[in-house]
Amino acid sequence: MGPEMRVCDYLVTTAVRVFQLFGYEPLDSPALELWDTLAAKGGADIEAETFKFKDKGDRDVGLRFDLTVPLARIVASNPNLPRPFRRYAIGKAWRYDRPQAGRYREFMQADVDVVGVDAPAADAEVVMVALEFFRQVLGQDYVIKINSRKILRGLVETVGIPDDMAFDCFRAVDKLDKIGRDGVLAELASHGIDESRGIQLLDTVGVRGRGRATLDRFQEMLSGSEVAREGLRELEIMAGIFEECAVDEYIEYDLSLARGLDYYTGPVFEGRYLRGPDVGSIAGGGRYDGLIQRFGARPTPATGISLGIGRMIDLMMALGKAQDVTPVLDVYIAPIGEDMMRYAMHAQNVLIRAGIRCEIDLMGRSLKKILEQADSKRARLTVIVGARDISNRQVSVRDMQTKETHQVRLEDLADFIRGALTNK
Amino acid sequence: MGPEMRVCDYLVTTAVRVFQLFGYEPLDSPALELWDTLAAKGGADIEAETFKFKDKGDRDVGLRFDLTVPLARIVASNPNLPRPFRRYAIGKAWRYDRPQAGRYREFMQADVDVVGVDAPAADAEVVMVALEFFRQVLGQDYVIKINSRKILRGLVETVGIPDDMAFDCFRAVDKLDKIGRDGVLAELASHGIDESRGIQLLDTVGVRGRGRATLDRFQEMLSGSEVAREGLRELEIMAGIFEECAVDEYIEYDLSLARGLDYYTGPVFEGRYLRGPDVGSIAGGGRYDGLIQRFGARPTPATGISLGIGRMIDLMMALGKAQDVTPVLDVYIAPIGEDMMRYAMHAQNVLIRAGIRCEIDLMGRSLKKILEQADSKRARLTVIVGARDISNRQVSVRDMQTKETHQVRLEDLADFIRGALTNK
Repeated sequence: MGPEMRVCDYLVTTAVRVFQLFGYEPLDSPALELWDTLAAKGGADIEAETFKFKDKGDRDVGLRFDLTVPLARIVASNPNLPRPFRRYAIGKAWRYDRPQAGRYREFMQADVDVVGVDAPAADAEVVMVALEFFRQVLGQDYVIKINSRKILRGLVETVGIPDDMAFDCFRAVDKLDKIGRDGVLAELASHGIDESRGIQLLDTVGVRGRGRATLDRFQEMLSGSEVAREGLRELEIMAGIFEECAVDEYIEYDLSLARGLDYYTGPVFEGRYLRGPDVGSIAGGGRYDGLIQRFGARPTPATGISLGIGRMIDLMMALGKAQDVTPVLDVYIAPIGEDMMRYAMHAQNVLIRAGIRCEIDLMGRSLKKILEQADSKRARLTVIVGARDISNRQVSVRDMQTKETHQVRLEDLADFIRGALTNK
Repeated sequence: MGPEMRVCDYLVTTAVRVFQLFGYEPLDSPALELWDTLAAKGGADIEAETFKFKDKGDRDVGLRFDLTVPLARIVASNPNLPRPFRRYAIGKAWRYDRPQAGRYREFMQADVDVVGVDAPAADAEVVMVALEFFRQVLGQDYVIKINSRKILRGLVETVGIPDDMAFDCFRAVDKLDKIGRDGVLAELASHGIDESRGIQLLDTVGVRGRGRATLDRFQEMLSGSEVAREGLRELEIMAGIFEECAVDEYIEYDLSLARGLDYYTGPVFEGRYLRGPDVGSIAGGGRYDGLIQRFGARPTPATGISLGIGRMIDLMMALGKAQDVTPVLDVYIAPIGEDMMRYAMHAQNVLIRAGIRCEIDLMGRSLKKILEQADSKRARLTVIVGARDISNRQVSVRDMQTKETHQVRLEDLADFIRGALTNK
């Protein structure tokens, strides 16, 4: 329980720093929304997957299932927000699980969105934000997959499937890695799409790879569809940016990527870790130009990406990185005898104001036990506060590695400790 | 909406830093709990004030109204947590409001708790944590009021009111500042406490002030009650710590302080800002030795304090401190012409990896408009990316104050900008 939470804090702190570096501003949204707001997203699954109930005023309400829908509602009701509006939000979202499990799926997300820009540069920017976050926390072995809903619509059209079934196709195709070719064909058949069309679709969406060469292969398949060519032009602009920024090795173009939510209209993104363990997607997003106007606003382009903090925690734990992010305890403070507590707290207060992390023993332990405790907490120094030293307003500082001990006056303690920590 | 959120981020970041300095570790809890868990807190108001509903499995659930009750449940079901267990939690809690308002009261809290220590030093420590937080964000003009539920029980007993009415008395007396003497007397009368006893109680709890002299005045009134003397001895130990740490000017002992929740058993605390605007209590807490065992654990002492982040945001806004906490935009990046976007993003990427906060113009504005935009965002430098410069892999860096412009090669950009920002 402890290590996971420390990793969570580390990921959230890193995300905030990266978001602010790119000029994003925080905008929170309520966890609880009217049901009609949540339902405006459309799609068949929300009724099943969303935590829905009646409030005391007998209205239908629900817990947000993502941070995008509440953002769209807020943007729609605040038409005077500056454009572009770059916002970030870090918070929980909920998906409904089997009630008998006694648990609700509650997970942390960290989102950035750009509202008011229809240029692919905005899509590239949110991808760059995610890449910088992954660079800082993972270093390597990650990729962001990219596709376009416009290209997918074109493909579905080319195969001769009616437009109103496009979203069902997207969802089926998106599961290719999970359920395989036969699984996708079965799901397509359940929507009334015959096998020959299904196979034709699958043969097309199997194309994936790095670099502009992959986009050239896309080009060959898409010549027949205007909307697909438009989608491809957008990806090419993004590809130019990723090449110039020398991050294109972290980008994979993948025609089978669709993302599950129905509100995407243009480029879609999904982050993956490349080495085992496979924790599923660690980021996801895309352009959602139609969502804000569903809340009564004028058409407003928007794009964004969501970092899956919960999945990232699982990943960091599996990679054994919990230890790396644990803040080091600089100093353990040991009052020897209850009378000494106030002097020990005085010493702690002095050190904390100097920005030194220090924990005090509150259990009235013996010196021997305290030193064991300090060792188990990997403290670098222990400050021992005993009656004889204190009569001279002094304490003893023990180096836990060399076991050297120095008498130090209380008023010199912060300087002494700072020096000792720097020289280690 | 923006400034409040920036203040919120600043307060949360500061709280986390302070909590970690004192050696506290993060432990989150679910927002949604089974109703029985929330109801274990006791007290008449939760049914009215808590967000309660039936889940799809027809079970009663609710949104947490504080971070303490979920902590108590988790501690009770994890008997092997280290002792003392110092934890912090930052998250939202909910109180039910009139549904017609279309809003739910959702507020952010930041809590520290020490589990497993019954010594007053633990109570003093959580107060010291709150004081250090206030010192960092407010600097001055704050106070933490302290009283003890044991002293209050003793007073109620001395006046001859039965013990099972003690909590009703606490709640009435706690409102002294809000509803005045007559209001408190009326509320006491509604619980069947006659006026003479009410007046006797009020005359006693009027005592408040700084320093140990106030505790001496408490002493004079409490000699008759064993439990009150025990409560006073605990406050005296805390007072010794605050004196030694030279923070006693920020502590006020106040016999009328009770706090509204029923689960407190020992010292109680409440933070206040001393100059106008009055935003109510900005921190609150106390010892709750009986709560964890209500969830089936063995008796486990615990104490904690909760920083009211929502109230603190109101306060910081009223004090005009929003500007102070806004991160400065170091650099605004201006691509002149759409073709330049990828080079502009290259420049941004280089700067961000150097930890320089920089925002890019995504709107395809003219140079004149971009410079206006950079000024309105108070950027210190603007990096202008134009076709002629880029043909030599260069950009122009403009100092927004002196209006000087320098041509800089892309590979030297981070060093140049860092130097320019340092020298300003």
